[in-house]
Amino acid sequence: MRETGPLVHCLTNSVVRQITADVLLASGAAPAMVDHPDEAGDFAAIASGVLVNVGNPTAEQVEGMHAAIASAREAGTPWVLDPVAVGGLVLRTRLSTEWLESGPAAIRANASETIALAGTGAGGRGVDSTEEVAAAAPAARDLSARSGAVVAVTGPRDLVVTHHDGLERATWVESGHPLLQKVIGTGCALGALTAAYLGAARAAGADDHDAVVAAHAHAGAAGTVAGRTSAGPGSFAVAWLDALYTLTPEDIAGLVTVTTE
Amino acid sequence: MRETGPLVHCLTNSVVRQITADVLLASGAAPAMVDHPDEAGDFAAIASGVLVNVGNPTAEQVEGMHAAIASAREAGTPWVLDPVAVGGLVLRTRLSTEWLESGPAAIRANASETIALAGTGAGGRGVDSTEEVAAAAPAARDLSARSGAVVAVTGPRDLVVTHHDGLERATWVESGHPLLQKVIGTGCALGALTAAYLGAARAAGADDHDAVVAAHAHAGAAGTVAGRTSAGPGSFAVAWLDALYTLTPEDIAGLVTVTTE
Amino acid sequence: MRETGPLVHCLTNSVVRQITADVLLASGAAPAMVDHPDEAGDFAAIASGVLVNVGNPTAEQVEGMHAAIASAREAGTPWVLDPVAVGGLVLRTRLSTEWLESGPAAIRANASETIALAGTGAGGRGVDSTEEVAAAAPAARDLSARSGAVVAVTGPRDLVVTHHDGLERATWVESGHPLLQKVIGTGCALGALTAAYLGAARAAGADDHDAVVAAHAHAGAAGTVAGRTSAGPGSFAVAWLDALYTLTPEDIAGLVTVTTE
Repeated sequence: MRETGPLVHCLTNSVVRQITADVLLASGAAPAMVDHPDEAGDFAAIASGVLVNVGNPTAEQVEGMHAAIASAREAGTPWVLDPVAVGGLVLRTRLSTEWLESGPAAIRANASETIALAGTGAGGRGVDSTEEVAAAAPAARDLSARSGAVVAVTGPRDLVVTHHDGLERATWVESGHPLLQKVIGTGCALGALTAAYLGAARAAGADDHDAVVAAHAHAGAAGTVAGRTSAGPGSFAVAWLDALYTLTPEDIAGLVTVTTE
Repeated sequence: MRETGPLVHCLTNSVVRQITADVLLASGAAPAMVDHPDEAGDFAAIASGVLVNVGNPTAEQVEGMHAAIASAREAGTPWVLDPVAVGGLVLRTRLSTEWLESGPAAIRANASETIALAGTGAGGRGVDSTEEVAAAAPAARDLSARSGAVVAVTGPRDLVVTHHDGLERATWVESGHPLLQKVIGTGCALGALTAAYLGAARAAGADDHDAVVAAHAHAGAAGTVAGRTSAGPGSFAVAWLDALYTLTPEDIAGLVTVTTE
Repeated sequence: MRETGPLVHCLTNSVVRQITADVLLASGAAPAMVDHPDEAGDFAAIASGVLVNVGNPTAEQVEGMHAAIASAREAGTPWVLDPVAVGGLVLRTRLSTEWLESGPAAIRANASETIALAGTGAGGRGVDSTEEVAAAAPAARDLSARSGAVVAVTGPRDLVVTHHDGLERATWVESGHPLLQKVIGTGCALGALTAAYLGAARAAGADDHDAVVAAHAHAGAAGTVAGRTSAGPGSFAVAWLDALYTLTPEDIAGLVTVTTE
């Protein structure tokens, strides 16, 4: 990832743009937020990966998202869908459901969002998940089958599922720290990091599923390290960015337990 | 507050969304920024509290604010008005004045904004206050009487005033640190924290005035603690978030001087 | 600068608004983000300096930018153009080119953006520069001649050029730290700091070119200090804000090498 320095085009919510960009920079990628409908299509065509995060969208940004997705699809750029708070809110639920048909390379969500997007549950009350990751496994398989995407369900343990075109893989990633839930944007930034790893993997001819696992391992391992020295969510966020920057692939491998079902 | 984990719907300015969310998470609340007019009304109805902060609004967000306020009012959700920089700027002054009629549970402002909103002064030059808190006491009483809200005037010492329907209370909260003025969004985040405390208080059958005092005490006490170890505004912001997370109610009581007039 | 406390009106991209405001506060200025077309013109007239940063604009914000620039020009308020990622993206390239005619006091850009705006290169791939600062010197001179602005090209060494109305100055500022590239918004915030220093300089009857040099020296010196103690981009950003706040003019002079060609 660091060698490629993938350019990640983020169409994401206004709450987390700064930390998303900082996470990408710390991890060796190059962030660019380009939301305007007149620019988003052109930019998605030259980016290495695209993130579409539907948290707190504006009407104009939604137009930019449509343009970016169409352009990414045409250019073969991998794009990631982060269906923030789908289920309870009408606009983002409609958009996310519609975009399942547009060939996302990956979907990153918490358990509640995964279940809501698959249409098998009632949805959460917002950005925090009221469901266990394991309970979302059938919904993740279903979403993967319908969309062709790798589906990552983020939680205390992350589950990465590929279940389409004869592929069947389910990988658990165990790492992280509870304070990740107390810093805004750690999950949203992980969606962007997933787009970065997918961009790097495609350039190297590597596998999408492995790229999504690697992104979650990187973020989780950095969380584990940050948790050791932090006194609360403020110092945790700082240490997490530092660890994202300093951890080597070997460090990450030693900090994360990856289990394949 | 931590037991309830109130869900706070924030319609706030784009400069402070990240720190506002981080402050709510550190304090035990759950933040959600939902600005789109198609979603804001639905969300305000299920939230525990709503913040409407008029700093740097967009036309679309203003529509969302109208929807959220109407919905909060109908659902009985307490909502907080933060009239950032009213007085000097036409749009936000018109909106804030209009919304005084819409039953805010609390108004949080600095002294200049309080005086400007009450229509008794010339207004400040922006987000910093050019007036002393004590000078804003008559304006705060007037605003409380007209709107039915608890009015909090934030400054070196905070003044919380309730003056309507036969209630007459004025409470001074002494805490904090000068570096709070050197970190963007500490005041705006306090508006969101006020909405969180109001949501928790309503759920527990407690008093609005006490909830507003408690929010200011929590933020101020964390500021006092952060000021002890920080070398400037960068490290202060980090330590403030840590302290918001770690301070117990007993810690806060020991760090703040509360005086009732 | 600290004595004047210039009020800086920032119309900037949504990714960097928080860090931009924090940098201004830490440096002794007062930030205000006012983007709405109904307010931006009025505010630019009372501000000490205005920043127009075209990264990730919205249609509504572009209207606000037009109003602010017209108003700044009429009021004699110095305004700074930061042409983020011009060259590759159509909207911002058109706007930035058009605004060269509107009398910016300064232009702050990286080498790729400088070359692209001058129309002499192919542009970069986004916010990071693919060109050396020295290679942008002719483009900087050309831009200064055409616009009347002081042109600052930011990079490992910063180049500040004035080349119009018989003035010919080129100053190199050597300071900073590589981690400045790994924290989002350090360059954009420097654009705002440039507007602050210009506002203070105009109030004191001092020179625009010297003000732009001073802004770059302040940011760079703080970067040098922050680099000494940080373990990665997270702790670097914190230490940078602390250093912006604590460094005296004498400290800065001792940390920066300024060379006049």
